[in-house]
Amino acid sequence: MPYVNIKITREGATAEQKAKLIEGATQLLVDVLGKNPKTTVVVIDEVETDNWGVGGESITVRRKKGM
Amino acid sequence: MPYVNIKITREGATAEQKAKLIEGATQLLVDVLGKNPKTTVVVIDEVETDNWGVGGESITVRRKKGM
Amino acid sequence: MPYVNIKITREGATAEQKAKLIEGATQLLVDVLGKNPKTTVVVIDEVETDNWGVGGESITVRRKKGM
Amino acid sequence: MPYVNIKITREGATAEQKAKLIEGATQLLVDVLGKNPKTTVVVIDEVETDNWGVGGESITVRRKKGM
Amino acid sequence: MPYVNIKITREGATAEQKAKLIEGATQLLVDVLGKNPKTTVVVIDEVETDNWGVGGESITVRRKKGM
Amino acid sequence: MPYVNIKITREGATAEQKAKLIEGATQLLVDVLGKNPKTTVVVIDEVETDNWGVGGESITVRRKKGM
Repeated sequence: MPYVNIKITREGATAEQKAKLIEGATQLLVDVLGKNPKTTVVVIDEVETDNWGVGGESITVRRKKGM
Repeated sequence: MPYVNIKITREGATAEQKAKLIEGATQLLVDVLGKNPKTTVVVIDEVETDNWGVGGESITVRRKKGM
Repeated sequence: MPYVNIKITREGATAEQKAKLIEGATQLLVDVLGKNPKTTVVVIDEVETDNWGVGGESITVRRKKGM
Repeated sequence: MPYVNIKITREGATAEQKAKLIEGATQLLVDVLGKNPKTTVVVIDEVETDNWGVGGESITVRRKKGM
Repeated sequence: MPYVNIKITREGATAEQKAKLIEGATQLLVDVLGKNPKTTVVVIDEVETDNWGVGGESITVRRKKGM
Repeated sequence: MPYVNIKITREGATAEQKAKLIEGATQLLVDVLGKNPKTTVVVIDEVETDNWGVGGESITVRRKKGM
């Protein structure tokens, strides 16, 4: 029954990479806590770089600075 | 003051259906806990089928398998 | 597969009331969108009144004012 | 290390306004709790007006009523 | 109608400090986007240091290392 | 910069198990998307079994039925 939410910036993650995140997060709950994978839910949110901030500035601005 | 977040896959829910979710969730909080509907907030997130996983695989893959 | 998160203030909701929220939210997704109840997840968060604000002040303060 | 999530309706917030939300929320955590701004994360979600409800009806409907 | 969720580690924030977070976050939405403070909701989650990780390790471990 | 939120029922996960969830989720983002572990945040929410529902009933009830 676990629920995992992964938030990343929208910068071109492919369907294949997202499938790997889903598979890996589900397996992690199986390995560490013995959870049932059939009822483990993973939701990935991709967030625009204008809408994500760290250090007080957006990722858009940080990318322009080469960070 | 309750806050309800409903996450569903993005598979064609209409504005009318979403209006019913908002109305129904608000009424549920009124009926069960006597909350004030005027300050009850409902937010619906529609998530791409590539970004939602259950059983370790994406909904996109599951739909192809007829699940 | 829907996921519903209900946030309310921690002010004495009983196990029976929370069971009704779970049942009602699950049924709502069945009725409106034809979702499978078996894989519908509902999570209720109860939040201390000091930690919930509306109108710029905490619910603790509002309760003292009779709001 | 704080994490701040701001949800607003998608009604034309500009990149500049979102940058001010990121900057302001980060500074708030510095000022009130002495948190390190470098590891403070802010994520802004913009939600369609059909998908946000208050008072049991969507913002789309409320906007039409002039609310 | 904005909704703001602030997550911090549970390390002794006082009711007064939390009141300042509620007030400050609400004012930020008024100042930047002209939102109505009366319907702006702020929810603060305080998370145990065992349950918060950054850099692959928990805050409990990082605090012991003086980080 | 990714942010991962893991929600599980509160049924005795140890600090060691939670440390493994933090480490594993962080490593997953490194392996799949090349994200920087130093700024990857993981937050674990442990939810009372009365407050988590699946199939329209609470985990408390399901545990009593041996599910």
